[in-house]
Amino acid sequence: MCGCFLPKGGRVLAVKTFVFDLDGVVYRGEQPLPGVADTIQTLRHLGHQVYFFTNNSSKSRPFYRDKLQRMGIETDLDHMMTSGYAAALYLAERGAQGASVYAIGEFGLKGELEAIGMRLVDSDDVDYVVVGIDHKFNYDMLVTAQNAIFRGAKFIAANPDTSFPLEHGRVIAGNGALVAAIKTASGVEPVMIGKPETAAMHEILRLAHATPEDTVVIGDRLDTDILAGNRIGATTVLVLTGISTTKDVETAPPEMQPKIVIGELRELLDAIND
Amino acid sequence: MCGCFLPKGGRVLAVKTFVFDLDGVVYRGEQPLPGVADTIQTLRHLGHQVYFFTNNSSKSRPFYRDKLQRMGIETDLDHMMTSGYAAALYLAERGAQGASVYAIGEFGLKGELEAIGMRLVDSDDVDYVVVGIDHKFNYDMLVTAQNAIFRGAKFIAANPDTSFPLEHGRVIAGNGALVAAIKTASGVEPVMIGKPETAAMHEILRLAHATPEDTVVIGDRLDTDILAGNRIGATTVLVLTGISTTKDVETAPPEMQPKIVIGELRELLDAIND
Repeated sequence: MCGCFLPKGGRVLAVKTFVFDLDGVVYRGEQPLPGVADTIQTLRHLGHQVYFFTNNSSKSRPFYRDKLQRMGIETDLDHMMTSGYAAALYLAERGAQGASVYAIGEFGLKGELEAIGMRLVDSDDVDYVVVGIDHKFNYDMLVTAQNAIFRGAKFIAANPDTSFPLEHGRVIAGNGALVAAIKTASGVEPVMIGKPETAAMHEILRLAHATPEDTVVIGDRLDTDILAGNRIGATTVLVLTGISTTKDVETAPPEMQPKIVIGELRELLDAIND
Repeated sequence: MCGCFLPKGGRVLAVKTFVFDLDGVVYRGEQPLPGVADTIQTLRHLGHQVYFFTNNSSKSRPFYRDKLQRMGIETDLDHMMTSGYAAALYLAERGAQGASVYAIGEFGLKGELEAIGMRLVDSDDVDYVVVGIDHKFNYDMLVTAQNAIFRGAKFIAANPDTSFPLEHGRVIAGNGALVAAIKTASGVEPVMIGKPETAAMHEILRLAHATPEDTVVIGDRLDTDILAGNRIGATTVLVLTGISTTKDVETAPPEMQPKIVIGELRELLDAIND
């Protein structure tokens, strides 16, 4: 079945699913990037589906919906994906409703796990260990996670980001650092949900009833957004308003090569139609 | 120059330097292992040098000296090596006296760094980051270490142990887990001091004025003690009173093969003389 429709211009286009990364693509910090709201409105007018997907698990989907709304972009919660929501969807699909979980993470993660009916417990006697960024992470949490995994709990990680730039040249550790500590202490590799792994991307395809061929992944990082998009077989678009540069593209390995490179998001429609 | 002497038996032996691991070799927890005190006394009567070396940086050298004394084994502090003391010696050799250091670790590490004249500061504006096991480790410490390394501080790790067994089947995270978090957040590999790396072993050789050929490393773990001993070219002895078993020896790679395997430490002298 082909989801086709006739736009005003008269040209027949397949319905596509567009998956936008947030920071560096839709906004930078608190600043919306040029042409984004218009581009998204046009995509929807043309009948396409628009999803937003951030690797951050600390904030909730309502937080991001409200943030986008302040920038003039409307979305409902079903089209907003965080790595925390993706982890919950992944677990729900595997029957984890009612299971016990030791969660390291903030509200954006814990709220999603509770929402699917998991029992959050502060113990190493659990079915699952789920780890997202937690600014209160400490040694006792490390040891609880380690013991839970030793005792057989399944180990799930929201995202592997190692580091984020702050203002004034400072940096801050990402969830990948917490996961590395637990992986080292337990000797077990986690199931990784977020980009550049594909579990979260597959949850979006499932929600959207989309095929990879009709999916467009738009991001600002070759090593997360573009790599994840390429891995699922989507059309990948690098926008140069964030981290990665044209120089990075020149030196990137084949699996991180975007199909399309654009300077700003408002070039997206023309680039896709070419 | 050959350090030779004539023992009572009349046989000419080179003076050797014996480097004993502690837990699993000299004692197990609070329990001295059989024949250890006698063996060490005999070695000294024969004119050999005896060093003790634990990868643990949390406790001080006086702590271990007192612990051995309670088990009937005398030693002075100069013959007691911890990975914390080894880190301080390593740094002192490189002129770090007076330098600033952000130290993650407990008294056994911080005391040794202060003792060589380093300035312990709680800031990311430092010359060195030194990391040992710290049961108060938390996210803020991770970010401070990460920023210090980003700003150019040299990154030194006391030891890479990932995990230790406790009673009742529980485990506890070792310094390797903390180091993995900081390494992931900063993207920088540390200089590793303790076993199975060789920096601490080389400090012992230097203190002892010993050559690898006249050094005997005795340990209970193939992947730390024996590997470090083999790496410096010492004679390595596995004693089966701790972690590694004869089955482990059968399946270990060449670099972890001990020269000699003994069941208990009292077999050491006969085994070395054979």
